Amino acid sequence: MTPEAPHYQKLAAHHRRLSHLGHVEAIVSWDEAAMMPEGGGPSRAEAVATLRVLAHELATDPSLGELLARAEEEGERGALGPWERANVRESRRLWVRETCLPAALVEASSRAESRSEQAWRKLRGQNDWESFRPLLAEVVDRKREVARCLAERLGLGPYDALLDGYEPGARARAIDSLFGDLRAYLPSVLPAILERQKSRAPLEPEGPFPVAQQRALGLAVMAKVGFDFNHGRLDVSHHPFCGGVPRDVRITTRYDEKDFVKAFMGVLHETGHARYEQNLPGAWLDQPVGRARSMSVHESQSLLQEMQVSRSRDFMTFAAPLIAQAFPEAAARMPQAFTAENLHRLYTRVRPGYIRVDADEVTYPCHVILRFEIEQALVENKLQVRDIPEAWDAAMTALLGLRTEGNYTNGCMQDVHWPAGLIGYFPTYTLGALTAAQLFAAARRELSGLGGSIAGGDFEPLGQWLRDRVWSQGSQLSTDELLVRATGRTLGTEDFKRHLESRYLSEA
Amino acid sequence: MTPEAPHYQKLAAHHRRLSHLGHVEAIVSWDEAAMMPEGGGPSRAEAVATLRVLAHELATDPSLGELLARAEEEGERGALGPWERANVRESRRLWVRETCLPAALVEASSRAESRSEQAWRKLRGQNDWESFRPLLAEVVDRKREVARCLAERLGLGPYDALLDGYEPGARARAIDSLFGDLRAYLPSVLPAILERQKSRAPLEPEGPFPVAQQRALGLAVMAKVGFDFNHGRLDVSHHPFCGGVPRDVRITTRYDEKDFVKAFMGVLHETGHARYEQNLPGAWLDQPVGRARSMSVHESQSLLQEMQVSRSRDFMTFAAPLIAQAFPEAAARMPQAFTAENLHRLYTRVRPGYIRVDADEVTYPCHVILRFEIEQALVENKLQVRDIPEAWDAAMTALLGLRTEGNYTNGCMQDVHWPAGLIGYFPTYTLGALTAAQLFAAARRELSGLGGSIAGGDFEPLGQWLRDRVWSQGSQLSTDELLVRATGRTLGTEDFKRHLESRYLSEA
Repeated sequence: MTPEAPHYQKLAAHHRRLSHLGHVEAIVSWDEAAMMPEGGGPSRAEAVATLRVLAHELATDPSLGELLARAEEEGERGALGPWERANVRESRRLWVRETCLPAALVEASSRAESRSEQAWRKLRGQNDWESFRPLLAEVVDRKREVARCLAERLGLGPYDALLDGYEPGARARAIDSLFGDLRAYLPSVLPAILERQKSRAPLEPEGPFPVAQQRALGLAVMAKVGFDFNHGRLDVSHHPFCGGVPRDVRITTRYDEKDFVKAFMGVLHETGHARYEQNLPGAWLDQPVGRARSMSVHESQSLLQEMQVSRSRDFMTFAAPLIAQAFPEAAARMPQAFTAENLHRLYTRVRPGYIRVDADEVTYPCHVILRFEIEQALVENKLQVRDIPEAWDAAMTALLGLRTEGNYTNGCMQDVHWPAGLIGYFPTYTLGALTAAQLFAAARRELSGLGGSIAGGDFEPLGQWLRDRVWSQGSQLSTDELLVRATGRTLGTEDFKRHLESRYLSEA
Repeated sequence: MTPEAPHYQKLAAHHRRLSHLGHVEAIVSWDEAAMMPEGGGPSRAEAVATLRVLAHELATDPSLGELLARAEEEGERGALGPWERANVRESRRLWVRETCLPAALVEASSRAESRSEQAWRKLRGQNDWESFRPLLAEVVDRKREVARCLAERLGLGPYDALLDGYEPGARARAIDSLFGDLRAYLPSVLPAILERQKSRAPLEPEGPFPVAQQRALGLAVMAKVGFDFNHGRLDVSHHPFCGGVPRDVRITTRYDEKDFVKAFMGVLHETGHARYEQNLPGAWLDQPVGRARSMSVHESQSLLQEMQVSRSRDFMTFAAPLIAQAFPEAAARMPQAFTAENLHRLYTRVRPGYIRVDADEVTYPCHVILRFEIEQALVENKLQVRDIPEAWDAAMTALLGLRTEGNYTNGCMQDVHWPAGLIGYFPTYTLGALTAAQLFAAARRELSGLGGSIAGGDFEPLGQWLRDRVWSQGSQLSTDELLVRATGRTLGTEDFKRHLESRYLSEA
């Protein structure tokens, strides 16, 4: 395809090999979470560690720097098309991040992170902040060094240097401005929303809801929504996720026989992630440019499916009969609990709470803003690990009116992210929510009758729109370019706020 | 553990890495057969091919020859224990086989084999020998070259050089003598066995036998027999197999709702393979010496479990009530079909047939002898591919009285082995059956009351005996040494013949 660009071709062959190792790692990781018996853990951990070392050796192969420079020259003299040029750009980005850290620092970070994550799994349940604190402090110290190295190489501030790994092109300053807006807005609308919901309490469907029936319902709705079962599966794991590879996407959920509500929506959320993966550009799947654009864009696809589409009244008009059919005994016992109206109320309940992963879409950004502010201050050495609980309590009180003093389990120890060294990741959740609202608003403008087709169970018009605007673009465009092309402007908070007002303050 | 043997240690580290790649390949191969949606196939094939190339590159790393020689010196000067020395010996054996073929020949073989296997999958059902013949001839031509290269390097005859890859230490001359004995014996007892069975026809249990109930029965009996579910699973695949890794053994089966008989025994067969893997020496699992000894020893463990133990009357005394409980409706309809006596008759039916994989233990060796004779003549250029059908027909007529003229589907095109390039493998099935009989006879001599403990559902005495004699030995001993240590002599046909006579000609 590019005979006049031999270095580009070598670079592409190199990435093909790397993507094959990534394929294998993705499948065994899914297996570990969804299939592996517990006793297989230790030998699996060793095998995967070796696989990662091999992949890292490949990704940092000394010949790559030269190859990249030559491929860039080929691009400059016009021997490459736009996708190839974008592929070289993405390769360069990954390579810089892979190669810029000293091996000793990578090892020290990785050791500190495993230790702290393992301790966290035990200590969180024991509310034991004092034992956990020094381990987290070690992670943060190493992360500050990592951030310094990356910052120097990338010409960015230290927090931006971490953030850029999850969200290429994103900068804390721009996020500050979006989050500052939400920080002022959300506490101002929350009381009105809560007041309004007092008179609209939904009925709680009563189970049991057998797993086999929940699974059948999930599969049926996934198929309707467009999940391609020739290129993916649904299984069970303790923590739901979307894994596998674009041609074989593995999503998981977790069932509770007393409550179908969470698993049903969880499956739809992961289906949103999965459809993005399944519809990435086919010709580029084994190249960096063929991957999903960023964490926020990925989250925007799951949240568009979950929050914008599936929790809407239109969707419940479509889904309520299927849900009632799936649980005939329960629906016969209390038919009023299975109406579209009641299910919609159930799926749009707003309740401020301590736990981020259980939060509704109105209060969720508060959890993220709090973490973003704390982790930014940590990386910039403006806050120390010992001061996290106080900062946490202050922010929770200000944002959601909840005190967390002494409650570490449901306070600053609730997430795996920091113990595992994921710092700079949290903002992508709320960027994703904003992006989902902005994309869906644009789709509604362009696709007349979209609400009606959703209510009628026809998801293809929206799928086509997303395929064209987002999925098929892979990483060819920057996140900003992608959003401008799809919605006419860069990311803002307007569509998100309008969505909240329409759903929670004005919908009949 | 061996500080005075630094080269040995390097060699061991090298094998550790290789075994980790093998681990990952085993899991994704299981996934491909048991879990992967069809559309995932093409990208999976590419990923696995890359993984194999990487493993091959590692296994043939230029530094290995020197490392092996130095480790052998360390062994000679007494710096290594017996297991370490055996590990070096096994490493050498694998390395010689990995490195002795020219890359062009490996590639040509692999291409010829994929082409012929793919064609076989289509042409077998169409009984189309004429289209298949040139593709198989190409495989055989390449295999002759491979055998020549290996023979020269190993100082063996060409067929022995292939055989040695599956069955280290085995030689065609010794097999000729064992098989010659069976070739004379089996046709002499078969008529009497068939005559005797005429008056002992079993009742056929009538289904349906729902998959969930069959699966629950299989799991319960696997647990009783000693399968360790903390280190393994049971799933479904089109062709049953035992895969995974010793600490996480994945066995599969295939269910037919009209017939539980085959899947139930299939699960026990794979459980025999699995227990060998699960009980290999824990300290050596990532080294060549820690692997199963050979294909015949592996098959001996599945056949010991299936043929010696599970098809016995004692086992049926234990299993019949569990089977009846598993299918309460069917058992209530025809209780006589679910007695130990009837199930035992059902599981010991002898019926000469065209298909090897459906054969009973009396006629199975005939299928193997025929293939062994033909493939040996092919490799030694004494027979050409075009002459296979005639040779097949002659042997089937002589051994089992069945004509196969013009019936390629159920004749010489029935197995995947030759189209896939597996030549030198077939004899291990019958060597395994002989080994199983000889091991079980020794266990009966040493463990008084073994039949009673099996009838009582206590499999631990036999398990302990096999763990000590076979499983825990890995590849430390040669197959001959293993068998002499366990049974007092090298492999013979006596115990197998005595077993057949006792079960098929004299049991009450």
